[in-house]
Amino acid sequence: MASAPDDDQRIGDISEGTVLRAILARTAPAANTILGPGDDAAVIAAPSRSVVATADTLVEGPDFRTAWSSGYDLGWKAAAVNLADIAAMGAVPTGLLVSLAVPRSTRLSFVEQMADGFREACAALAPGCSVVGGDLTVSELLLIAVTALGDLDGRDAVTRAGARPGDVVALAGELGAAAAGLALLFARFRAGETPVAVERSELDAAQRHALDRQLRPAPPIALGPVAAEAGATAMMDVSDGLALDAARLADASGVTLALDGAALDALAFAADRERAIGGGEDHGLLATFPPGVLPEGFHRLGVVTARAADGVLVDGAPITHAGWDPYRDWDGAL
Amino acid sequence: MASAPDDDQRIGDISEGTVLRAILARTAPAANTILGPGDDAAVIAAPSRSVVATADTLVEGPDFRTAWSSGYDLGWKAAAVNLADIAAMGAVPTGLLVSLAVPRSTRLSFVEQMADGFREACAALAPGCSVVGGDLTVSELLLIAVTALGDLDGRDAVTRAGARPGDVVALAGELGAAAAGLALLFARFRAGETPVAVERSELDAAQRHALDRQLRPAPPIALGPVAAEAGATAMMDVSDGLALDAARLADASGVTLALDGAALDALAFAADRERAIGGGEDHGLLATFPPGVLPEGFHRLGVVTARAADGVLVDGAPITHAGWDPYRDWDGAL
Repeated sequence: MASAPDDDQRIGDISEGTVLRAILARTAPAANTILGPGDDAAVIAAPSRSVVATADTLVEGPDFRTAWSSGYDLGWKAAAVNLADIAAMGAVPTGLLVSLAVPRSTRLSFVEQMADGFREACAALAPGCSVVGGDLTVSELLLIAVTALGDLDGRDAVTRAGARPGDVVALAGELGAAAAGLALLFARFRAGETPVAVERSELDAAQRHALDRQLRPAPPIALGPVAAEAGATAMMDVSDGLALDAARLADASGVTLALDGAALDALAFAADRERAIGGGEDHGLLATFPPGVLPEGFHRLGVVTARAADGVLVDGAPITHAGWDPYRDWDGAL
Repeated sequence: MASAPDDDQRIGDISEGTVLRAILARTAPAANTILGPGDDAAVIAAPSRSVVATADTLVEGPDFRTAWSSGYDLGWKAAAVNLADIAAMGAVPTGLLVSLAVPRSTRLSFVEQMADGFREACAALAPGCSVVGGDLTVSELLLIAVTALGDLDGRDAVTRAGARPGDVVALAGELGAAAAGLALLFARFRAGETPVAVERSELDAAQRHALDRQLRPAPPIALGPVAAEAGATAMMDVSDGLALDAARLADASGVTLALDGAALDALAFAADRERAIGGGEDHGLLATFPPGVLPEGFHRLGVVTARAADGVLVDGAPITHAGWDPYRDWDGAL
């Protein structure tokens, strides 16, 4: 949808109202919206008399590079990572609020593509949910702060703290694909240290899949409520790698997750177990279920045991890989 | 609460978990929180089966300078401006989600003071509301993106679109004080173009008041639900100046607001009518009420008439001042 550069105005040269109108024209109505964008605040239905709310931000530098991610990619990813947190509580996403901080030199078409990415990610991953509000500011840096809201459909939230010894440990979604995509970007699409545009034609099908999962993650949002309905005792989304996130669930529940190496290998992207355990950003759903329960779409990874010295074991041995943490691991480069 | 610089670690040198624990230790429990911070998402009560939601961001540069604003000031202001948008719908604030992007060099004490500012602003302006979630990222720039949630207590939302000819136009809150504070900062606390620390001892009482309203706005949050209960036909918060915001309400309602110059003068900070009309950031509540209705705390500014050529008139004449718009007016300086 990019206009020719000559017609494609820069954000700093047009009014906030013009930019917001362009964004709203690309925003689908949300099924649950009582009052949409344009007033001081939006009003969204909360039929369960409670609302699930989460916030997650993508910052240029630690979280993305504009040489690698299009506006569409960024809108999609900012939506997907927040939708995954709602799904991980067992809730259905009802609306997104998007706070954009953009440099003055940003093209209007880039922001329009971002709106397209938000709309299409919601349509694909969480039909009925869409952007219901937000704000726009100018900034030296591109930053996308999203709040997602959701409804529990009368159920209790599924926290990280409910896993019990004897439960099944299971995962819906991928393990390692997004990290493989990131590795590919660093290895293949830089000139020296500088990110350069991706040439998809240079990649094979598996590499293109990994790249897609890094740039446009596709977490199994619909399976969050399915897991809750099936009686999941604990659940979370795997954003920082299985090693780190499984340890968080184990700590919150006061148990140990005893994982099966062969089951990990079966799910690992490109049969790379280390990346499957350490790589983040797949946003799969890690859940525990009572014995004998395993909803369709979830894959058994192991069992919950009484707390041992380590919170996570693979074939009986502790994991040493720490997972990817952009807060800690980002080197400061843009 | 600032520690000695030697003990006061920089955000880039400590773990995200350590920072989040320090913030959460300073966060009051929200009365409406079913599940607080620490899981993938929070769960907040929505007794009216709907939730009011708004997002607003403060960015270093266009919205604040750290030479002028303390961490406490920034937390307070980020809370207050979002609470005002909830109040302007006639709703009671129930929770805030805070996305912080902070440079690695930021001191932990600065972020702790920000948490104190959020807590104290909620306690003072919207008791029962507090921070229920959020996230923390590193960034080249300090940025505070807030989403506020609220409950309508069974009422319909008061939009900008319901003003009818014959209604009373009224305002709760101040007019021009925050803009006077900003003018004072630019005039008195810069070395050349560079902001320098404020010396409050150099200021008289009126100047200190103006400075406080700029750095720690105190919108009349509790009067939002009061206005709604009294039958307000339209309402909004005055963030970009009365001229701009009253015109927005007039346009949304398809009416003209005929304001009385003497009534404006009576409310204008330091009797400066031009600043009262053009200056932003007071976050007062502009509302329209049926004839004869004027809840305590609201001051009559004029009447609603059938739509004329201009949306806002003062003593029968159009307003030419456009109001402050950081999106348009920020000069790019930090």
